[in-house]
Amino acid sequence: MTSQEIFQEIQKKKSFLCVGLDTDLSRIPKHLLEEEDPIFAFNKQIIDATKDLCIAYKPNIAFYEAEGVKGWQSLQKTLDYIPTEIFTIADAKRGDIGNTTKKYADAFFKHMDFDSITVAPYMGVDSVSPFLEYEGKWSILLALTSNQGSYDFQRLESNGQALYKSVIETSSEWGSKDQIMYVVGATRAEDLAEIRKIIPDHFLLVPGVGAQGGSLEEVVKHGMNSKCGLIVNSSRGIIYADDSQDFAAASREKAKLLQTQMASYL
Amino acid sequence: MTSQEIFQEIQKKKSFLCVGLDTDLSRIPKHLLEEEDPIFAFNKQIIDATKDLCIAYKPNIAFYEAEGVKGWQSLQKTLDYIPTEIFTIADAKRGDIGNTTKKYADAFFKHMDFDSITVAPYMGVDSVSPFLEYEGKWSILLALTSNQGSYDFQRLESNGQALYKSVIETSSEWGSKDQIMYVVGATRAEDLAEIRKIIPDHFLLVPGVGAQGGSLEEVVKHGMNSKCGLIVNSSRGIIYADDSQDFAAASREKAKLLQTQMASYL
Repeated sequence: MTSQEIFQEIQKKKSFLCVGLDTDLSRIPKHLLEEEDPIFAFNKQIIDATKDLCIAYKPNIAFYEAEGVKGWQSLQKTLDYIPTEIFTIADAKRGDIGNTTKKYADAFFKHMDFDSITVAPYMGVDSVSPFLEYEGKWSILLALTSNQGSYDFQRLESNGQALYKSVIETSSEWGSKDQIMYVVGATRAEDLAEIRKIIPDHFLLVPGVGAQGGSLEEVVKHGMNSKCGLIVNSSRGIIYADDSQDFAAASREKAKLLQTQMASYL
Repeated sequence: MTSQEIFQEIQKKKSFLCVGLDTDLSRIPKHLLEEEDPIFAFNKQIIDATKDLCIAYKPNIAFYEAEGVKGWQSLQKTLDYIPTEIFTIADAKRGDIGNTTKKYADAFFKHMDFDSITVAPYMGVDSVSPFLEYEGKWSILLALTSNQGSYDFQRLESNGQALYKSVIETSSEWGSKDQIMYVVGATRAEDLAEIRKIIPDHFLLVPGVGAQGGSLEEVVKHGMNSKCGLIVNSSRGIIYADDSQDFAAASREKAKLLQTQMASYL
């Protein structure tokens, strides 16, 4: 999927919402636990209820991996169920030396056919390049995350700038803006303005709106560009809106609220 | 497993060798492809041939993940087959925000019962702490890796020292030396001397000896402490020594060579 195609989908749906499928057996409505595949049963209803409101789905792989072989089966079924025009993100934060990253790329791009994967950049260029060799696929690099621990290393100053800026500056040379996006947390939206000075045109995946406290208005103010350039993720705020039989309707409402707000910015 | 128990195993076997189980269907002997589970068939013979010579096994999870559900089954069977006194390392390089890392910890420590996992530290303390909450389990943090890309960010100077040193200094406060080890590549062994100034007592997992060009002698000279403090990994150099019916005997020879050299340093 090209950046132009993503932008078209954004214009069509008047939305730049990504729904995070962090599906946790201990948090989904109890009645679903009787299903043969509770994780997929949950995801299926969430997807049915939100697919006209969002332009991306982002399963966080940890939640599936935690369920072992069954979890991977649920993940594959979920991926197959997502309409093809919707961008899919394997939130896996993988990264290893070259010959090993090649295997992760095969896992998520060949074996599973995700459109993109989140990647941990600490190991440098050869830990990312095997992902970039897949045509039409995206690597979404961790730049500035939304958690408290992002202050430990990502903001360390080096050569007069924070490490996360060096990561962006250096890695943006590794591929085109049709191959690379960046994860930028929304907890301090003014950082987005700084990042836009380095990469005005790249898409940014912004987590942390909602459960983690970020403001959509601030994100748009500092991060939006002429082709939107933003994919804003909400996970828990949408999928765990309610734990009754009607959970999917409640999730739709939460997604609709965000989409309506997004439409006003587009 | 405590550091004392690991040291006892090192003394007993006169070895600090870790065998990396980077088992790749495209590289294992062709005759094994007829087996029902070729990956496990390969690993089983490698383990049988090397278990008296090494003190740890390190499956790199990418190679299993790349085979989908079948790969995870091979991984579980491999883990079950490794004798309990041998330290097991899930080389997964995971790391995410707290509630998500908790799921990775469950996957590798509860669902699968590995003794340790390799962890990417870029996201900071809360991306690691859920691993540390498992008693008797280890987190092995990426500090300085052995690949070319390690020069991109790990060696950036900040506050007068390289980033990897800041990572070690800061993260060594997050848990005890019975919980945390560090990955330190062997390609520039003099870096080990620098690292030993910061953490004289921690165990270091050292990849890059063999296929990646590191020298065991140099690693020992700069990295060994009074309780050994080293686990040296070799993957491709051992497991792909030969691709005939007798591959396991060839692997044993390669492992024996390293173990004999190690015995002379202990």
